[in-house]
Amino acid sequence: MMEFTFTVNWGDTDAAGIVYYPNYYKWMDNATHHFFNKIGHSSVDLFDKQRVGIPLLETHCGFFSPSFFGNEIVVRSKIEEIRNKVFRIRHTFQRGETKLAEGYQVHAWTDFSKDIPKAFPIPDEIRKALHEHMIE
Amino acid sequence: MMEFTFTVNWGDTDAAGIVYYPNYYKWMDNATHHFFNKIGHSSVDLFDKQRVGIPLLETHCGFFSPSFFGNEIVVRSKIEEIRNKVFRIRHTFQRGETKLAEGYQVHAWTDFSKDIPKAFPIPDEIRKALHEHMIE
Amino acid sequence: MMEFTFTVNWGDTDAAGIVYYPNYYKWMDNATHHFFNKIGHSSVDLFDKQRVGIPLLETHCGFFSPSFFGNEIVVRSKIEEIRNKVFRIRHTFQRGETKLAEGYQVHAWTDFSKDIPKAFPIPDEIRKALHEHMIE
Amino acid sequence: MMEFTFTVNWGDTDAAGIVYYPNYYKWMDNATHHFFNKIGHSSVDLFDKQRVGIPLLETHCGFFSPSFFGNEIVVRSKIEEIRNKVFRIRHTFQRGETKLAEGYQVHAWTDFSKDIPKAFPIPDEIRKALHEHMIE
Repeated sequence: MMEFTFTVNWGDTDAAGIVYYPNYYKWMDNATHHFFNKIGHSSVDLFDKQRVGIPLLETHCGFFSPSFFGNEIVVRSKIEEIRNKVFRIRHTFQRGETKLAEGYQVHAWTDFSKDIPKAFPIPDEIRKALHEHMIE
Repeated sequence: MMEFTFTVNWGDTDAAGIVYYPNYYKWMDNATHHFFNKIGHSSVDLFDKQRVGIPLLETHCGFFSPSFFGNEIVVRSKIEEIRNKVFRIRHTFQRGETKLAEGYQVHAWTDFSKDIPKAFPIPDEIRKALHEHMIE
Repeated sequence: MMEFTFTVNWGDTDAAGIVYYPNYYKWMDNATHHFFNKIGHSSVDLFDKQRVGIPLLETHCGFFSPSFFGNEIVVRSKIEEIRNKVFRIRHTFQRGETKLAEGYQVHAWTDFSKDIPKAFPIPDEIRKALHEHMIE
Repeated sequence: MMEFTFTVNWGDTDAAGIVYYPNYYKWMDNATHHFFNKIGHSSVDLFDKQRVGIPLLETHCGFFSPSFFGNEIVVRSKIEEIRNKVFRIRHTFQRGETKLAEGYQVHAWTDFSKDIPKAFPIPDEIRKALHEHMIE
């Protein structure tokens, strides 16, 4: 389990004064990149040195309580599933004791070095690192 | 079924040069607001005059093919389910013959006139208008 | 002079319920790309076929009146200055008779085909096309 | 002088692979809110308790060097001018020794408690706090 903390910005809300929901997906994405940094495989290095990216196959989020400008939010991220070329990461958003939202992202391990990006098997080293953060 | 067409902007892509996926959720949201305009219940009027909004309970999207700067994309939107206080709208993204993505949003019919927003039954007039755009 | 019309989206506002100002810069950028499309040199083609981009050296905007969700806004764009490698485009934002904002962007004509992007002289064909939209 | 550090996110870049420039304005805005937090007058409190906001009259930014996904950027913010109802804050963006951009924001001290927002004189307590961060 990995934690990532951030504060809701002035521009993150919508016309109703609550957080505009696509921001939760931005934050999931930020949390995933943070996750890879923390396990020692920064997505900057993966992309810049190896042309490896992790585009999305599928994402989902459920919203339980609205959040507002200035809220400090903790995202907790866990690996839920590891398949051959694909992994699923689950993120939970909390403000203090209040659960705000929970969602997941399904990423494909992808080679961007050719003209057409192509998924390939997740290397063992990465697989091992992801396993350590599996939901038990 | 309702159609909404737009063009991918210069800033909509990510470091891999393909559309940054949270934008699909922005576009779903835009398509839903467009949908309400078209059925004669603009969300501007709903919010400004009646303090009625449609916050999200749940959203999902599957991604099938990447999109790029300058692509013209058509979103087709249909109502999938209408419950007492909640409805589900499904959006399909297409560039020419290529299906790019498909997702849904579950909205709650919500009164924002008090301090605490509160869902309430979808009025008959709206219910009828939504029914005309149900997936058959 | 070129016109570009759009509608303020639900997520474009901030915690005070008015448009979050960085969106004006997004809209200026969209208006510039629209401008190039209209003069027959689409920035998609420029970038995809010739690896030519137009990054910014400087931007400015003055804000005169707030805008809101659902507003229909017209941007009027004119070329203000053409130098050897650089041009300045001015955008005026209007909602009906109300002037909302006015700003400019200074773009450098830039080769992105090498590792390090490099400005180069604006080709005559483009120069001519820009001249036709100069502020007189 | 106040410092605010952040990392460029995966979605912050454009089709040319460099940071999409409107993000610099978002970051200026974030830096200004950070500034107010640090001087003990959080903009959350100002807005939620007193309905005081600081909308923009004018913003400007010059761009000197491109930034990329994963860059750690330091924003340094100083007050440049304090007038009766208006103040100007200058932000400098740096990645290590490289100056990336420099810009300013002119904010109006504004009462949002009525239907029509209205600028009013900056209170003495705030004025004093801003003075301590003036460019000398």
